[in-house]
Amino acid sequence: MIILGIDPGYATLGYGIVKKKGNFFEPITYGVIITEAQLKTPERLKRIYDNLIDLINQYQPDVMAVEELFFNKNVKTAIQVGQARGVILLAGANAGIPLYEYTPLQVKQGVVGYGRANKMQVRQMVKALLKLSALPEKADSADALAVAICHGHSQKMIKRLGGY
Amino acid sequence: MIILGIDPGYATLGYGIVKKKGNFFEPITYGVIITEAQLKTPERLKRIYDNLIDLINQYQPDVMAVEELFFNKNVKTAIQVGQARGVILLAGANAGIPLYEYTPLQVKQGVVGYGRANKMQVRQMVKALLKLSALPEKADSADALAVAICHGHSQKMIKRLGGY
Repeated sequence: MIILGIDPGYATLGYGIVKKKGNFFEPITYGVIITEAQLKTPERLKRIYDNLIDLINQYQPDVMAVEELFFNKNVKTAIQVGQARGVILLAGANAGIPLYEYTPLQVKQGVVGYGRANKMQVRQMVKALLKLSALPEKADSADALAVAICHGHSQKMIKRLGGY
Repeated sequence: MIILGIDPGYATLGYGIVKKKGNFFEPITYGVIITEAQLKTPERLKRIYDNLIDLINQYQPDVMAVEELFFNKNVKTAIQVGQARGVILLAGANAGIPLYEYTPLQVKQGVVGYGRANKMQVRQMVKALLKLSALPEKADSADALAVAICHGHSQKMIKRLGGY
């Protein structure tokens, strides 16, 4: 199973693609999609959408796992990242790929096994599970790999618990 | 010039297409795009996107005018409507149509000539300017027609003021 994990963002979106073989994960590719602030909003959204569709066409993931958004107060930022998230979900829907959402808590539990883990602990666990020689240069791509691994582990749990 | 006006929304999105001839406006079509709550989020966003692309292909607007979003507090709603707005702007970008944004204040000023006008005054002016026999059944479509008219009037102002 090939899993495309996404850490949603407007200026910087992290992606990480992993292959799950039995209980193990192999990294396939990871990186970030950057949209420059001087571009107009529709162009920035189009860049996110086009880059995701390219990734999907190239790596043919079986499933997409997207981190849920949480904001405490900044509504303007919420709308901006919401717009980016809209085109991310649309890319999955238009490609006919099943989409799953995970909260930050679920990602921490799914990767580290501990919901109060900090971001650095999550990234170190991503590095260990994928046998990377170093942490990804861009933190957003490490976070996206974590979402993909979380989905892989959740699948295992679903099979263990109920078997559907 | 054919203008597609949009009142963005997630469950209900209003659209209104008008043709501007000199100083007058003709209604071409208006209505709402509804996405049922029982559908999953990516499917709802895909429905909005596909319906907009169909409208664009059918009526070939020269320009899209979209109302800006304002929220005071409900961040969850802001993200949801932000997601819908993302696919609206993407539809315009993918169709290669120039997009303009107007605040609610600009729409009121552009349609009624008075920024403190209430929603009903705006809708009544839409009815008068487009010579409709009755107000549109769905308020969201009247609001979308107002955004389209606002853009038409702004174009006139731009020509009057500066000439670019």
